[in-house]
Amino acid sequence: MTTTETLTAERILEATEEVLRRYGPAKATVVDVARVLGVSHGSVYRHFRTKAALREAVTARWLGRTEVLLSEIVEAPARSAEEKLRAWLACLFETKRHKAGGDPELFATYSVLITEASGVVDEHLVTLVGQLTRIVEEGVRGGEFEAPEPVVVAQAVFDATDRFHDPVHAPEWRRPSIDDEFRAVCELLLRGLRVSAVS
Amino acid sequence: MTTTETLTAERILEATEEVLRRYGPAKATVVDVARVLGVSHGSVYRHFRTKAALREAVTARWLGRTEVLLSEIVEAPARSAEEKLRAWLACLFETKRHKAGGDPELFATYSVLITEASGVVDEHLVTLVGQLTRIVEEGVRGGEFEAPEPVVVAQAVFDATDRFHDPVHAPEWRRPSIDDEFRAVCELLLRGLRVSAVS
Repeated sequence: MTTTETLTAERILEATEEVLRRYGPAKATVVDVARVLGVSHGSVYRHFRTKAALREAVTARWLGRTEVLLSEIVEAPARSAEEKLRAWLACLFETKRHKAGGDPELFATYSVLITEASGVVDEHLVTLVGQLTRIVEEGVRGGEFEAPEPVVVAQAVFDATDRFHDPVHAPEWRRPSIDDEFRAVCELLLRGLRVSAVS
Repeated sequence: MTTTETLTAERILEATEEVLRRYGPAKATVVDVARVLGVSHGSVYRHFRTKAALREAVTARWLGRTEVLLSEIVEAPARSAEEKLRAWLACLFETKRHKAGGDPELFATYSVLITEASGVVDEHLVTLVGQLTRIVEEGVRGGEFEAPEPVVVAQAVFDATDRFHDPVHAPEWRRPSIDDEFRAVCELLLRGLRVSAVS
């Protein structure tokens, strides 16, 4: 096995994330990434044809990690749709908040990258609303939820919890009252989803 | 009646808004305001003791206009709480969207002023949630709504519609899908508020 063979896309993405964090998105170059890996920049370009493609792939990988965590909640057997919805919303909030507060430099880096990769972000949002739609559909099938159009309701749940996952709201996530406010919104939405005698 | 007597606080605030719009919040000075009014800057300082106090008063006046519009909906007799809640949320969204789209320069000016006047903004938010609380309480008294703690539920309604009134979301208000998304969130929240057989 030669060194070239071990240069996987994943290794390049890891190194790129580190370089972006260290130099900032304005200064980081493909040459910096190659240097960290001890390879030529040509080797990096064999995996990612442009600097923009490389940066988009880094953003997609970052957003993808959240998607994987959340999909485990969607797939979990033996939980009610209500439990899944609660867990999914709490996990999304907790993951975003952890990313924002746990590593502010990396979060600031991604806040810039995200503005460059609107296509990648749109796909991420479609994936998340798709996961929510599956939970709502499951609730409707199981007689727990009432939702004439699950995808519309899933989008509404996503939009109504915007304050607890959209990075523009990150400064508010440090407030002491935020957890109570999050719970109150979730309770109201769940009441709106549950099957009721009148509607 | 002398010229000095006609220099009301309201006239100063109007002139300040115009000066802020014309020169931008970074450059506008009290001297500019005095010049527009044809008075000395001392005359302006007799009404507003500091430049910061003047700017805060301009912001409070701007936010106050929205509060007055919305309070008319709260006070309206002979409407159900559900109709009031719908009208109130639609009016808030429409007013903010109109401010953002109708006069982008003034909106950009206020986006800066708002960051300087967090106390004024906090009071505005308390006033708005107070209005919502009154609608929720009215709904509970009339047997329309179910809400163990009206103020908590009112805050949840306000937070859940954040995407449709917080100025950080202004760029999204131009999207063609935004009206349908707004309606879907309102419907879900109203379902969560209505009295139901199960809860």
